[in-house]
Amino acid sequence: MLGEIIAIGNELTSGRILNTNSRFAAGQLFSAGHEIMAMATIGDTPAKIGEALKRAIRRSDFVIVTGGLGPTTDDITNKAVADALDRPSTLYPEILEKIKLQLADSPMPEGVTLEKLAWLPEGAEVLKPEARMAGYLLVHHEKPIFFLPGVPHEMRELLAERVIPWLALWQGGEARQVKQGVYKIFGLTETEINSRLNHLEDSADVRIGYYPVFPDVHLNLTVMTKDAGETGRIFSSLATEIEATLGDHIFGMDEETMAGVVGRLLSEQGKTLAAAESCSGGLMAHKITSVPGSSGYFAGGVVAYSNALKECFLDVSPETLMEHGAVSAPTAIAMARGVRSRTGADIGISVTGIAGPTGGTAAKPVGTVFIGLADDDETYDFQFLFPGDRWQIQEMTAQTALNLVRLHLLNKPLTSIQ
Amino acid sequence: MLGEIIAIGNELTSGRILNTNSRFAAGQLFSAGHEIMAMATIGDTPAKIGEALKRAIRRSDFVIVTGGLGPTTDDITNKAVADALDRPSTLYPEILEKIKLQLADSPMPEGVTLEKLAWLPEGAEVLKPEARMAGYLLVHHEKPIFFLPGVPHEMRELLAERVIPWLALWQGGEARQVKQGVYKIFGLTETEINSRLNHLEDSADVRIGYYPVFPDVHLNLTVMTKDAGETGRIFSSLATEIEATLGDHIFGMDEETMAGVVGRLLSEQGKTLAAAESCSGGLMAHKITSVPGSSGYFAGGVVAYSNALKECFLDVSPETLMEHGAVSAPTAIAMARGVRSRTGADIGISVTGIAGPTGGTAAKPVGTVFIGLADDDETYDFQFLFPGDRWQIQEMTAQTALNLVRLHLLNKPLTSIQ
Repeated sequence: MLGEIIAIGNELTSGRILNTNSRFAAGQLFSAGHEIMAMATIGDTPAKIGEALKRAIRRSDFVIVTGGLGPTTDDITNKAVADALDRPSTLYPEILEKIKLQLADSPMPEGVTLEKLAWLPEGAEVLKPEARMAGYLLVHHEKPIFFLPGVPHEMRELLAERVIPWLALWQGGEARQVKQGVYKIFGLTETEINSRLNHLEDSADVRIGYYPVFPDVHLNLTVMTKDAGETGRIFSSLATEIEATLGDHIFGMDEETMAGVVGRLLSEQGKTLAAAESCSGGLMAHKITSVPGSSGYFAGGVVAYSNALKECFLDVSPETLMEHGAVSAPTAIAMARGVRSRTGADIGISVTGIAGPTGGTAAKPVGTVFIGLADDDETYDFQFLFPGDRWQIQEMTAQTALNLVRLHLLNKPLTSIQ
Repeated sequence: MLGEIIAIGNELTSGRILNTNSRFAAGQLFSAGHEIMAMATIGDTPAKIGEALKRAIRRSDFVIVTGGLGPTTDDITNKAVADALDRPSTLYPEILEKIKLQLADSPMPEGVTLEKLAWLPEGAEVLKPEARMAGYLLVHHEKPIFFLPGVPHEMRELLAERVIPWLALWQGGEARQVKQGVYKIFGLTETEINSRLNHLEDSADVRIGYYPVFPDVHLNLTVMTKDAGETGRIFSSLATEIEATLGDHIFGMDEETMAGVVGRLLSEQGKTLAAAESCSGGLMAHKITSVPGSSGYFAGGVVAYSNALKECFLDVSPETLMEHGAVSAPTAIAMARGVRSRTGADIGISVTGIAGPTGGTAAKPVGTVFIGLADDDETYDFQFLFPGDRWQIQEMTAQTALNLVRLHLLNKPLTSIQ
C-alpha cells in the first residue's frame, strides 16, 4: 500500500528538534512491504495541518500522523483534524476515566488540563486503550489514518503493535512479499558501482539504490513480488550477481561496519591487532574501539606524529627516518613492526602520511599516505594518494588500513591493492 | 519570509537514511529570521517532485530543494523540475567545461555520464560556479527556488554562503537588521540552560534556541530589529547576560569546537599536549588531530587498554595497577604523568574507565571514568559516572577530558569540577 507520513510540530519546522519519527516509521513500513510516497512536516497551524491531511487522504492508501496529541496549548492536532474532516470533537468517557485516575496519582500543575486528551474527532478508535498513551485510528473515506504520539518510544510501540498488523489485515490478499538487503561497499564510487550493475534493474519488482556514506557506499537491494517464493528466487539470483560483480569490495551486509567485520574476523581467528598512526591521528583506534568487545582483540595503539615518538614508542630507527623520511614505505613498515612487537599483537597496522592542509611537497603532496602491515611471517606496504580535505583524507586512511587488515585476515592477495 | 523545504530521495522515504539536511536548513533559516512552514520528503518520482514543488511555490515566499542533483540514474531532480515548471533542460557549457577538466584528471567508468550534470532547467543560475559542486537558483513566478546538493557539507556551505545572504538581499527594504551568534556549551543540559535563561526571551525581536548536539548544547541567539544600532545594543546586552549566567560552561562561539579551542590555547601559550587513553580508545587523539595544524602542539598519544601496555608505554607501576586497579584515580594520574614524561609534552591528559556494555561491577559500574591531568607542577584527578551507551560514554569522556585541559589552560580552578 502507498502511504504518507505527516509529522506535526513547530519544534520540527524551526529545526530545533530532528524528526527521527518519520524516518523510523518509513523504514518499518517499507520493510513491511508498503511504500511511503511522501513525508511532510508541518508547524502547529490548524489550517496547514488540515490541508496536508486532506491532500494525503486523496492521494494515498493510508496516512500516519505523528505529534501534537499532548495536553499543552500547542498540541492542536485533534482540534485541527476535527475541523478539517468535519468530525466534531467528541468526549470519550473511558479516556476521561483513565485521566481522573492518573490525576489522583499525580496532580497536574495549574493551567494544564489533561481533560483535553479525552476529546477526539468523532469516529476515532483508540489504538491501545489499556495503556497511558494517546494514539487513535480514523477511517475516513475508507482510508485508514493513524494518529500517533510524537514521543518516540510510544510512536514505535504503537507502530509495531497496532499500525503494521492492522495494515496487514486491511490489505487482505494484495500484500506484496518484500525482501531487502544492504551491501556495504568500499573502494568503488557510487558511479562505478552504478555502471557495473545498471543492467540489473530492468524490472518493476526490483529496486537498487546507491547511497554514498563516506568513505563507503551502501547498495540497497529490494525485491517485491506478489509471491514469497518468487521474491526469494529473484533476490537470490540478484544477490549472486552483485556479489560476483563487486567481489571483495563488499565488506559487509546490513548493519555491519568495517571495524565490526575486522573485529569479528580477529575474534574468529583468535588474533590480536595493534595500530600505529601518524596522519590518521587516532581515528583508526577510535573506529576499532567503537565496537563493543574490542578490548578482546585490540592490543592497543600509538599516535606518533613526531620522529621522536616514532623512535621511542615504535622503535623506528633514526637511520630509516633520516634516509627515507617519516612519510615513506620503510617508515610505515618499521612502525607496523614496532607496534606489533611492543604490544605483542599478532598483526601490526601502521599509517604515515600528510593529511593537510599544509605539509605537502611536490614529491609528497597532501593526501600521500603509506600503510604498513606486519604479521609474524611478512610485512607489506602500500602507497596511496587520497583526494579531499583533511577530514576526508583521515577517514579514507583509517578505513583503507582497516580494509587491508580485513583482506589480510581473509587471505586475499594484498599485493594487487594500491 | 515564509519558506518550505523539500528533500528528495528514495533513501529518505524508505527510512534508510535520516534526513538531517532539512532540519539543519530549517534551523539556519529560522535563525536568519525566516519561518519554515513545511518540510516535505519525496521519493525519486518525477510527478511527485513536480507536484510538491508547484504547491510549495504557490504558498511560500521561497523554496529550498535538496538532493537528486548527482550523476547517477536515480538523480532525477533536474529533469523533474524542467518538466514541472516547463523550463526545458538546457546545456550549460561552462559546467560541461569543468566536467571535462575533471574527467581529464580522473576518467569515469564506462556508462556513467557526468555530462548529465551540465543540463539544468532553463533560467538556472549556478550558485557557486567556481566550485566542483551542484546547486543552482531558479526564480519562478517571482519566487526564489534554491536547489542544493544532498551531500551535507556541500548543502551547508551553499546555504551559508549563498542562500541566506541572497534571501537577505531579496528581502530588500523591508529587511530587518539581524545579528546572530551561537554559543557552544558543555556541562549543562538543554533544560538547565533554558531554566537559567528563559527570562531573557520576552520580546518579539529576540529568539533564543537550544540545540542539543551531543555531548554539547548549542545556544543560538538571534536579534532582529528594523535598526542596526538597536539590534547591536540588544544583542550586546543579552550576550553579556548569557555569558555571566553560563560562565565557563561556554567553551566557544559560532564555528569553534572544543578541540579547536584547546588547540588555540595551546598554540597561544606555546605548550604541547599528550594523551593517554583507555576507555575513550583514541577518540580524544582523533578529536585533537582533526584540527588542522594540531601537529604543532599535539606531542602524541597512546591507546592502552591492557595493563601490560599501561606499564610498557606509560610507566604505570605494577604496584599501582595491583593495588588500585586499572580503573582508578592513581592509575589515571600515573598514565598522565607517564605520557607527559615519555613524550616530553608540557601537559599530559589521561582517561581510564568502563565504556561498556560489559565490564562494569557494583563498585565501578559501566560509565565510571577517571581522568588525570599532569603538568610540570601538579597532578589532578577527577572521577565521573557518565550515563548512556558505549558511544555516549566515549564521547562524554573525550570531551570532558578536553574541557579539563581547556579550563586548566585558562587557569580556572579544577578542583570544583566533578
